[in-house]
Amino acid sequence: MKLRIDVTARDGAARVGEVRTARGTFRTPVFMPVGTRGAVRTIATADLEALGAEIVLGNTYHLMLRPGAEVIEALGGLHGFEDWRGHVLTDSGGYQVFSLQPKVDDDGATFRSTYDGSLHHLTPELAVRRQEQLGADIQMVLDVCAPLPSERSVLVAAVERTALWAARARSAHTRVEDQALFGIVQGGDDVALRRESAQRTVALDFDGYAVGGLSVGESREVMLPALQAAVDELPADQPRYFMGLGDPLGIVEAVALGVDMFDCVLPTRLARHGTILTSSGRLNIKRAEWARSSEPLDPTCGCDVCRRHSRGYLRHLFVVGEPTAARLATLHNISWLLRFVEGIRTAVRDGRFEAFRRAVADVWG
Amino acid sequence: MKLRIDVTARDGAARVGEVRTARGTFRTPVFMPVGTRGAVRTIATADLEALGAEIVLGNTYHLMLRPGAEVIEALGGLHGFEDWRGHVLTDSGGYQVFSLQPKVDDDGATFRSTYDGSLHHLTPELAVRRQEQLGADIQMVLDVCAPLPSERSVLVAAVERTALWAARARSAHTRVEDQALFGIVQGGDDVALRRESAQRTVALDFDGYAVGGLSVGESREVMLPALQAAVDELPADQPRYFMGLGDPLGIVEAVALGVDMFDCVLPTRLARHGTILTSSGRLNIKRAEWARSSEPLDPTCGCDVCRRHSRGYLRHLFVVGEPTAARLATLHNISWLLRFVEGIRTAVRDGRFEAFRRAVADVWG
Repeated sequence: MKLRIDVTARDGAARVGEVRTARGTFRTPVFMPVGTRGAVRTIATADLEALGAEIVLGNTYHLMLRPGAEVIEALGGLHGFEDWRGHVLTDSGGYQVFSLQPKVDDDGATFRSTYDGSLHHLTPELAVRRQEQLGADIQMVLDVCAPLPSERSVLVAAVERTALWAARARSAHTRVEDQALFGIVQGGDDVALRRESAQRTVALDFDGYAVGGLSVGESREVMLPALQAAVDELPADQPRYFMGLGDPLGIVEAVALGVDMFDCVLPTRLARHGTILTSSGRLNIKRAEWARSSEPLDPTCGCDVCRRHSRGYLRHLFVVGEPTAARLATLHNISWLLRFVEGIRTAVRDGRFEAFRRAVADVWG
Repeated sequence: MKLRIDVTARDGAARVGEVRTARGTFRTPVFMPVGTRGAVRTIATADLEALGAEIVLGNTYHLMLRPGAEVIEALGGLHGFEDWRGHVLTDSGGYQVFSLQPKVDDDGATFRSTYDGSLHHLTPELAVRRQEQLGADIQMVLDVCAPLPSERSVLVAAVERTALWAARARSAHTRVEDQALFGIVQGGDDVALRRESAQRTVALDFDGYAVGGLSVGESREVMLPALQAAVDELPADQPRYFMGLGDPLGIVEAVALGVDMFDCVLPTRLARHGTILTSSGRLNIKRAEWARSSEPLDPTCGCDVCRRHSRGYLRHLFVVGEPTAARLATLHNISWLLRFVEGIRTAVRDGRFEAFRRAVADVWG
C-alpha cells in the first residue's frame, strides 16, 4: 500500500493530518521519541503508552550491531522485541555510520563497529534488508549526509550519491504491503541543490519524504530557506519528515513550511542532564534555588511527574545521582513536547497558528 | 499511640498479622523496599504504588546530609517529599555511620560526610530529632552494630552502649502520637548476650523491636540461634523486625522464628547487576543463552515486566547498558519478593508453612 497523508486542517502552509499505514494511523504534526537501542533511554514501553506516543524511532546502526537485526527478527521485529503496538520508524543507519569516518564508495560504506571494532559494510540494499528484519512500519533510505558548512562540490557529490542509493533502495524494497519507504532530500544549505535533490527523490516515487542534513548546527536563517526549497518540491498528499529536529521553535518554524514529522534526541538528552522544558522556556532543575521548592517542574503541565513531584524532590534526585531523576525528567520532557505538538495541531485547526508561532518565538526565540 | 500487631494466623511460631499505625495498617510478614536517598533506586513512587508496597525505608544518614532533614521537613517530610501515601520506616543512620570508622564515645559518633568530607556528630537524641523531621511512621533508635566475628568484649561493649543510647532515645522521643520508635537488639552471635540485650531493650518499652547486627556475612547456622535467642525475649503483641535481611530462604527461616518485618537492598542491587529472582532460583539475565529467548524472566510471575517483556529483550538492554534494564529488573525483583512474602502469609494462614519452607529450601538452600 502507498502511504498517504489525509490533511484535515490547514492554516497557511501549516497542516494537520493523519498518516494511514498498514498498522493504523498517527496524527501529524507528530514528534517521535527516539528509542535508539530498543528503548527510549530511561523509560519503558509502558511509559510510552502512558505518554500517548503514537510512533517511535529505532536506530538501525545500533540495533544491527546489538543485538543484531536477525535476533530482533526472531523475536518478532521491534514491535515484538519492545512489545510496542504503536508505529516504528527506523533510520537507515547512515547518519551514525557517516559520523564514524567510514570508507565510502558508490557501492556503500565500510565502517568499524563502535561496540567491538569489527568491520561492517552497509549498502542501500542491505539497509533496506536490515530494516525489513527490524520490522519497521516506515523505513528510511541510506543517504549521504554532508556536514555544514561544506564546499559546494561536497554537497553536490552527496546529492548525487544519495540519488544513486535512493534508486537502489527503491528497487530493493519489496516488502511494500506493510513497510513504507521514505526518500531523503539532501543538498546542504544550497537552495538550488535542495530543490534538485527533492525533485530527483520525488521522481523515484517513495511513500514519504524526509529532509536530512539540516539541523546539524547551522543557524535558523540558513536552515529555513534550504528546508523551504525542499518542501516546495514535495507532493502535498504524502508525509514530510524533518530528521533530527526537536527544539520547540524549530518545530513551529518547520510546521509553518508544511512539515509533518519530527524526531530528536534533544528533549530526552536534555532531561538526563537536568534541563527541563517548560512553558516559560528551559529550566535547570539542579540549581540550588529549587532545593525547597514545592512547585512542579512546569505549573501549566498536567503530566504524571508534574502532578505529583516537586522541583525540590527532582533537584535532590539529580544532585545525589539517583537514576530516577533522569527517568522523571525524561517522562516530563517527552510529555511536554508531545503536548506542545498537540498544541500546534489545535492552533492549526483553530486558525490561530500564527499567534501560536509568535508566542513560541517570544519564549524560545 | 502504642504500636501493636494484630496476629490473625499462626503456624508454629510463624505468624501473619497487621500492624496498625497512626497512618493505617500494613500486613506482615512484610518486605520493605529500601529508598535510600528518597527513592528506591531506578523506580519512582508511582511504581511502588503499582507494586503494592505498603511500607518503604528511608536512610537517615543519606537524607540528613542530602538534601538535609530540614529540607525534607519543609517539603512535608518523606511522605510529602516522595509523594508517598504508604508507610515509611527510617533507620537511625547508625549503620552507615559505623561503616565510616567514626570517633565514638558514650555521647555519640563523630564522622565525616561521604558527600563532602564535612564533620558531623550523631547522638541518640539527634537521631530521634532527624527522624522526626523526616516524618517517619516508624523510627529506629541509634545503636552500636559490631562486626562479625568480634571478640566478646566488643560485643558486650556494643550491647552496653546500645542500651545506654536506647534509654536516651526513648526519653527524647516526644512525638509519640504519630511516630513509633523501635528498639534494636544487639549481641552479635552470642546467644546469652542476645538474650540480655533483648531483655534490656524490652524493659525500655518501645513500640516494636528490631534485631540488628545479623545478616552481616555470618552463616545461617550462626545467625539463627542468635536470632532465636533475641526473639524469645520479645513481646508477642508487638512487631519484630530483622534488619537487613532479604534473601528468600533467610526470610522464611526468620518467619519460622516469629519475625514480621524485613528490609534489604539485595533484591534491588541484584537487579541492577542483572541477577533476577525466579521461582527456580537466581537467573543471570546477561548470559548469551537468553539472546533469542521469548520467555519471560520467570514464567510463574505475573508482574508487569514478566507479562510483556522477554528474556531476550531484557538481556539486550543489559548488554548495551540501557538504564531501562536496571529499572525493569528492579520492578521484577521487588514484585517477585513482595509476592514471595504474600506466599508466606498465605501458607501460614493455610497451615502449610512447613511445606512452603521446605520448597523454598529446595530452591534456595
